[in-house]
This record gives sequence, structure tokens and C-alpha cells, in this order.
Amino acid sequence: MKAVGFKKSLPVEDENSFINFETEKPVPGENDLLVKIEAVSVNPVDFKVRKSAAKDKELESPKIIGWDAAGVVEGIGEKVKNFKKGDEVFYAGVITRPGCNAEYQLIDERSAGHKPQNLSWEEAAAMPLTSLTAWESIFERLQISENSGLGKTILVIGGAGGVGSIGIQLLKKLTQLKVIATASREETEKWSREKGADVVVNHKELLKNMKKAGFAEVDYILNFSNTDIHWDAMAELIKPQGHICSIVETREPVDLNKLKNKSAAFHWELMFTRPTLQTDDMFKQHEILERLSSLLEEGKLESTLNKTFQGLEASTFREVHRLQESGESIGKNVIRY
Amino acid sequence: MKAVGFKKSLPVEDENSFINFETEKPVPGENDLLVKIEAVSVNPVDFKVRKSAAKDKELESPKIIGWDAAGVVEGIGEKVKNFKKGDEVFYAGVITRPGCNAEYQLIDERSAGHKPQNLSWEEAAAMPLTSLTAWESIFERLQISENSGLGKTILVIGGAGGVGSIGIQLLKKLTQLKVIATASREETEKWSREKGADVVVNHKELLKNMKKAGFAEVDYILNFSNTDIHWDAMAELIKPQGHICSIVETREPVDLNKLKNKSAAFHWELMFTRPTLQTDDMFKQHEILERLSSLLEEGKLESTLNKTFQGLEASTFREVHRLQESGESIGKNVIRY
Repeated sequence: MKAVGFKKSLPVEDENSFINFETEKPVPGENDLLVKIEAVSVNPVDFKVRKSAAKDKELESPKIIGWDAAGVVEGIGEKVKNFKKGDEVFYAGVITRPGCNAEYQLIDERSAGHKPQNLSWEEAAAMPLTSLTAWESIFERLQISENSGLGKTILVIGGAGGVGSIGIQLLKKLTQLKVIATASREETEKWSREKGADVVVNHKELLKNMKKAGFAEVDYILNFSNTDIHWDAMAELIKPQGHICSIVETREPVDLNKLKNKSAAFHWELMFTRPTLQTDDMFKQHEILERLSSLLEEGKLESTLNKTFQGLEASTFREVHRLQESGESIGKNVIRY
Repeated sequence: MKAVGFKKSLPVEDENSFINFETEKPVPGENDLLVKIEAVSVNPVDFKVRKSAAKDKELESPKIIGWDAAGVVEGIGEKVKNFKKGDEVFYAGVITRPGCNAEYQLIDERSAGHKPQNLSWEEAAAMPLTSLTAWESIFERLQISENSGLGKTILVIGGAGGVGSIGIQLLKKLTQLKVIATASREETEKWSREKGADVVVNHKELLKNMKKAGFAEVDYILNFSNTDIHWDAMAELIKPQGHICSIVETREPVDLNKLKNKSAAFHWELMFTRPTLQTDDMFKQHEILERLSSLLEEGKLESTLNKTFQGLEASTFREVHRLQESGESIGKNVIRY
């Protein structure tokens, strides 16, 4: 099968930062689906892995990355219960197995969902990783119940990114929380409002801008942007007994004591925790994707697809990674094979 | 009225680290009870405040500390609803108001409970601060539901201290969790077992000892001892998606990333959060104390009183602070006035 990968961690400007190559079509394990991929999307984890996985020495065979895809089931393992050949699926998968930057990929059925029927391949491929991240952040880490939250507020730092774009929608459609999103440019502010944010504030000088907007304190904070930069502001803005959830690792050790007088809590969300550590409840991601599929089909949620690129080609991946690394990306960038 | 306090932060060996003095009997505000104190207990917060509150310059009038008491209501504010003159009460109170190292003290009724009728003044005075801390840690921060937890495990670091001694009891009597407590001396190990711990491990080389005891991972961790020292071990021992709660501030910034791959959460518990920040739910501490009172009266919980000292005298407080500061204290030390 055709695939795109790399043998060395190189800057995206380097022609060898991605290469085209041929490799064996994989054979499904007992819980696996073999998926012929139609479209994929790119996430920050992709370029983090590209930059670190082959930093010290060249790999013997190219590494295939990418964990967000939509496609058709072409084969199934003997224990698969929820899917059959011909099913259209979407999924993020697990970082410890080969990714979706290839014609075919194996995916554990507990990590896959049925593709929303009304969405194009591109629209569907934009959703899994960010939706799972946002869903787990809101409903599992922060333990917000559906339809609850009346009179309470949540701050979403990074409203126009991939996770923010679906996070805002989930909050607005499935809870009663007031949603304050952050953005720092005119177009990201507009995008955040379109996704449903009640209020948008600039995250440069977050504390000052929050106070100006009339929000000295919030009940919850979701940080989809930068944990270090916003640490002090988050500590000041969170209400006593409030909850903060972040998806972005810190560069420096943090002063945890800043949350102590408030008896506040800090939660990590990493979408790969369940499939990587094979937790007892890893099937939960299948359930979340099935629910998301229904919500997308009912029109309660909309795809966060922004830009579409063409072709399973090294040059296409270089182009999309360049865009993502600029930090200027809005919503999701998808590649149609 | 008679009181004990200090004008300067001094080592406990110094005769002026506590002084006897006379001051005005206070007058209740609208939500206050005026309590004639019968017995008090000493907590780590006491010597932390003694050591820091008058470090740089001598205070004009002596500071009264101590936040754990039992006594009789002698007067009430005009809005008080839940108590009347003559009621026997127990409470911890709030660090921003004068403490209980005095004949009389004011306490907001939302922070007080009725003293368990079957307990002596000493036994009752041992309970409020540590019980509120343990209760909030278990049922509010970690959000463990009563009667739940079958098949799950919790590690209590510091099983024989004041908070650990009641925390173990609450866990064993009100949940179905398996309780692993830590202790480092023969007598603290024995004490932890008497309080109900299913397993006791030595917290020197915690990780190694936990593995030896057959617990490579736990669902919850309560740290009532030292957050810095046990950080790495906690990160390794906590299950994916698990929850850690600590009551002890860190000395250094911490590497929060160690919890990220597991999507784990860290919660602070500070009993003073509600009364200090006057949260909407500060009456919850009244409710917790009433519940604790019933549980103590029913014999489901027992007082963690260990040693009793006599008299509202500076010399008594010096003696008890010396014992507490040694780190060798077990359960609670109480002073009977």
C-alpha cells in the first residue's frame, strides 16, 4: 500500500520531512478493523511526533503518523462485534500504533465509531480526535452533567482551535453553561462566535480582559492553548472549589500552591490515555463517537472542517504541517485521499 | 476574658512564644455564636501561623490562634437560626478571625455543629478541623459517593496523623474502598490499623513498599503528609484517570506533566476555603458537623483524641506545640480548659 512517513525528524521546509513510500498492507488483529482511508485530519500531536520520534537517529523504515481518519471497513478481526465489512467509520486511534497517513490502517473497534451519514469524508475526518478530547474534558474530567450548569460559567482558552471549535459547540448544545471563549485575532474571534461562544475575550492579557468583560471569576476553565502562559491568570480566575482542565503539557514545573487557598482542582485530559493504557473502559471512546455521530446527523453539532487539501502525498502533508505549526490555523485542516 | 497568644513569632522553646493576657470578651455579629470554650485541640495550621504571623515585627496586641474547639453557647446574633443559648457545640471556624486559645470565641453558626452528646469535651474538641478536612477530601474533592468503591483502592499517606486518623474511619465506615494507609513507626502502624486500615505500608520508599504489598496502582490517593516528597511516587501509583487529593502545600514548583499521560487529576483540600472566602455553600460545614455528630453518637466513628493536657495557660500551649512540631504526634492532642 501507499504511505507517507519520515525516517528522520526534520523541519517541515526540508523535502525529506515527509516521504512517499510503499509498505505492506496490514492484517487485522482479533479486535481490529482494517480501514481503507478516505480522508484524514492533522492535529498538533502529529507535528510533535514528527519533530521528536527520529531526532537522534534515522529510523530503519519510515514512521507513519496521523491519528484522525474516516474510511471504509475492508476487513475485521475474529472478535469484532460492532462493525462489519463495508461500514463507514471515523476514529482517532492510538499513538502507539501506525497512523492514518497511509492507504490502509488498523483500528481497534473499541476506538472507532460509525461515520455520520450526512457528512462528507472530509467533514467526518475533521472530528474524532478533537471531539473525543473535548467530550472527555467536559463530561469526564470536569464531570459536568448534560443539561446542567445554569447560572454557571466556563472559560475556554483557545476557542478557535480544533478542540475549542467542537468544545464550544458541545458546551452550548449539551449544557446550560455560559461559554466565554478566548481568541486573539479578528478571524478567530468571529469563528469562536460562530461556533456558539456567548462572549469572546482576547487571551493576550487574559486577566485584564476577563475583568473588563465582567467575569472576575468562572466556575470552570478548559485550557486548549498553553498551560504555562495562562497559569497565573487561571489561578486568579477560577472560583473557590472550581475545576481547571488542560490538554497542553507544561514546559516548566508549576506553582501548584496558587490553587490551594481555593481548594481548586487541576485535571489533565489526554485522548490517548484510554487506548494507550488499555483501560477497562476504553470502549467508552466507541460510545462517545457513536453519540457524536448521532448529534452530527441530527444537526445539533457541525463539522469543524475549515480547509481541505488533496492527495496522500508527502508534499500535501508538508503543506498542512507548515500551516499547523504557524499557530494560525483555525478549526481543522483535512486531507482527502 | 483570659486568653493565650503571642506578639512575636518565636521558637516554641522561647518563653514568650506564648503569653497569657486579658482582653475584651467579644460581642457576636448577626450570624455569630458566642461560645464559652471547654476544650480545644491543636493542628499543624496553629504552629504554621505562630511561626509566620509576627515574624518581621512585634504585634501591638497579642494574636489569638487555634481553630478547633468545643464549648457552650452563651449568646447568639440576631440572625442565628440553628442554635440557642445553652447549646453544646463543636467547630473549627475560620483562620481570618481570632482563634479558640481563649475563654470565649465568636463562631459563625454556618461553621458550627452540635457536640456529640456521648463525647467528653476533650473527645469532641479533637474532631472538627480534621473531620471537616477528611470529609471534604473524600466526598467533595475526590467525589467518592457513600457506599461506593467496591473493588477499588485508596492510598492514605499519613494514616496516623489527625486527618488520617478520622479519614481512615470515614473511608471504612462510609465507603467500600480498600484502604491502604502509610505509617513509618511501629506505634503509628498500630494506630492506623486500629482506626481500620486494611493494609499499612511504610512511606519511606513508598513505591517499593506498595509494590511489595501488591499494590502497583490505586484508584485514589489522599496525601495528608508531604506533597513534594511523595509526588513522583503518587504519579507512578495513581491509576489512569485517577484522582489525587492533598492538603499540604508544596515547597517547590512541581512537574505536573507526570500526571498527563494518565489523564489524572490533582485536587487541593483546604478546610478554610469555605469560611474564609464566604462561599455560597459555606453552610455545608454546619451540615457535615451535624452528620459527624450523629455518626459519633451512633458509635460508627470514634474520637481521634490521643493525649489530653490541662489548662488555658501559655505553658500548656508551648508544651503541645513542641509535641506537634516534633512530627511524632499521633492522632489529636487536646487541651481541657
